[in-house]
Amino acid sequence: MKQIYLDNAATTKVDERVSLAMQLYFAEKYGNASSVHLLGQESKRALEQSRVVIAKSIGAKSDEIIFTSGGTESNNLALKGLFLANNKKHIITTKIEHDCVLNACKWLEKQGAKVDYLDVNKEGFVNPEDVKKAITNNTLVVSIIHGNNEIGTIQNIEEIGRICREKGVYLHTDACQSYTKTRLNVKKQNLDLVTLNAHKIHGPKGVGALFVRRGIKIIPLLHGGGHEKGLRSGTENISGIVGFAKAVKLTGNRDIKQMEKLRDKLIEGILKIPNTKLNGPTEKRLCNNINICFENIEGEAIGGYLDAEGICSSTGSACSSHTLEASHVLKAIGKTDLEANSSIRLSLSRYNKEEEIDKVLDALPKVVNKLRKISPFAK
Amino acid sequence: MKQIYLDNAATTKVDERVSLAMQLYFAEKYGNASSVHLLGQESKRALEQSRVVIAKSIGAKSDEIIFTSGGTESNNLALKGLFLANNKKHIITTKIEHDCVLNACKWLEKQGAKVDYLDVNKEGFVNPEDVKKAITNNTLVVSIIHGNNEIGTIQNIEEIGRICREKGVYLHTDACQSYTKTRLNVKKQNLDLVTLNAHKIHGPKGVGALFVRRGIKIIPLLHGGGHEKGLRSGTENISGIVGFAKAVKLTGNRDIKQMEKLRDKLIEGILKIPNTKLNGPTEKRLCNNINICFENIEGEAIGGYLDAEGICSSTGSACSSHTLEASHVLKAIGKTDLEANSSIRLSLSRYNKEEEIDKVLDALPKVVNKLRKISPFAK
Repeated sequence: MKQIYLDNAATTKVDERVSLAMQLYFAEKYGNASSVHLLGQESKRALEQSRVVIAKSIGAKSDEIIFTSGGTESNNLALKGLFLANNKKHIITTKIEHDCVLNACKWLEKQGAKVDYLDVNKEGFVNPEDVKKAITNNTLVVSIIHGNNEIGTIQNIEEIGRICREKGVYLHTDACQSYTKTRLNVKKQNLDLVTLNAHKIHGPKGVGALFVRRGIKIIPLLHGGGHEKGLRSGTENISGIVGFAKAVKLTGNRDIKQMEKLRDKLIEGILKIPNTKLNGPTEKRLCNNINICFENIEGEAIGGYLDAEGICSSTGSACSSHTLEASHVLKAIGKTDLEANSSIRLSLSRYNKEEEIDKVLDALPKVVNKLRKISPFAK
Repeated sequence: MKQIYLDNAATTKVDERVSLAMQLYFAEKYGNASSVHLLGQESKRALEQSRVVIAKSIGAKSDEIIFTSGGTESNNLALKGLFLANNKKHIITTKIEHDCVLNACKWLEKQGAKVDYLDVNKEGFVNPEDVKKAITNNTLVVSIIHGNNEIGTIQNIEEIGRICREKGVYLHTDACQSYTKTRLNVKKQNLDLVTLNAHKIHGPKGVGALFVRRGIKIIPLLHGGGHEKGLRSGTENISGIVGFAKAVKLTGNRDIKQMEKLRDKLIEGILKIPNTKLNGPTEKRLCNNINICFENIEGEAIGGYLDAEGICSSTGSACSSHTLEASHVLKAIGKTDLEANSSIRLSLSRYNKEEEIDKVLDALPKVVNKLRKISPFAK
């Protein structure tokens, strides 16, 4: 049975053109980019060409891109790297960040950081005025997720960027979910550090990047041979990086429009099921994100039944599936534990077809119906 | 022209059976191992099966293996992770470690660590008695490279392990070069932490592992969703990890014997060239390592001329090719700057054929002759 894959916020299928591009760097052009011989120099060239692609895609210069092993490493490097390199101790973030930002912040608190976790409104938006008010003379960095991984809220990062620049405070954004799905331009949006990764955009797992604006000092997490201008040592994962760049090249506005159309159809269809509510915003929402509360049924149970029908969904972030706690993001937008645990996320990619959406809209009401009949919470 | 690749200590060609195994996890089984649906669980299974393969290969239990992005990350995680989790401040290492251990130690010195860098003898061996003498009540960990990446010296890690266990001190070893090339058994050798990686054994770049003995506490470098028992967060690089395990399965004693034979032939042949000396030991040497000093010629020049002949070699570690300084390893075994800069490393893999060695033995004397004629240092 071919799965209907609606968990693209967790990870995506690698595009076959991407794995093809990577292939060349496995058995043929396998040199170490630090080696001076021909094979090494070929790898070095591929590395730098890829860097240009990534840089261009966000309006950066190529020397502002550091390749990493993924979004988690980039977020850790951004926050810990800045903190270790500076005397200011105050970090401003939000209650709806990815676990890797929240847990990096919690660790930094043990190292002497003072962290403010800003509230968001019912749709998950941070009020830029709240950012402004929170900034003190001791503030080092504001770190706000660009497009939320659970509820799809796209922050007004440009306005927040303007405020941070005005106040002389760094702005970091985790753009793992929003990258290539909405506008991201480090110049126009006044971004100082940006986290990107490959596996959310049909590139390989294990590859990411951190944009660090020229002149900003960070301390590396990985010391060693001095790769990536000394900011991230370790033999460069050339095939992965080439795949990342290829994945970026393959993205486009047409895909966004297609995903938006399917997203809206799916939301509209699901909301016809009684006692359902959309979590997150109706506008300024990631083109691929759907998050719905099905009152009085467990999201996990819906996921299980959908899985049996060949439909891959998720309850919140894949990364926090290790815990049984209610989603911190849904709680931050005012949902009760019960509502949070009754929610599922469906996330699209450019590979989803309208007929798949139709199948989901056929299966889901039956699943909900079945579950509500046996639910101890159902009225 | 097909290259004769003799820079396998820098990185290796990915075995085609490895990239084939990886392929399945790009476009087919691409789930996030943390997702609870079918595709996620397939990835989870592949992850855990790979963990068993790596664990078994060094006599460990699978819950003692943490996957990382490579050797540099593993070495950083071992040393920084231990240091941050413990009160003891004294680290013992050697003067011939890879840059990532040395530079992690240098950074830890800024954080209050006291680091002793032990001397080695003329063949690169650490005297286990020196380790014993250096241990104090404040000693946290001894970190010694198992097989040296430049001169191939395989340390008497079992004896050092015995001493460390007796003294209640952790032993970490960087086994990136020795893994699958000589005996490595965490039980018999009393190892507490071991760094492994994939791209030196015909696996992909960007994947490594750290063995951490049960019960040893380390602080993660990457905080986040709690992957790898909370010790290394970040979406697991399933295709890379599967490739790593496949690469391990493909190694064997026959390859070691073949490399040893070619290594000895190459050393013997090169030493017939006048004024050449072997750097490193004649016994207990990595099966694939050759390092030779050609008096009065620059190693870089030899490398350049060999490159023109289609032969990939290196001067010391690829990772420190960014600097122009003489190899710290060659200096530690008593070589002068001039001798160190007159040396090249040739490193084999199971793919090297005898006819390639013959070609090198034909080309090298001519190159050396040519260079000696124009060398300002030549007598």
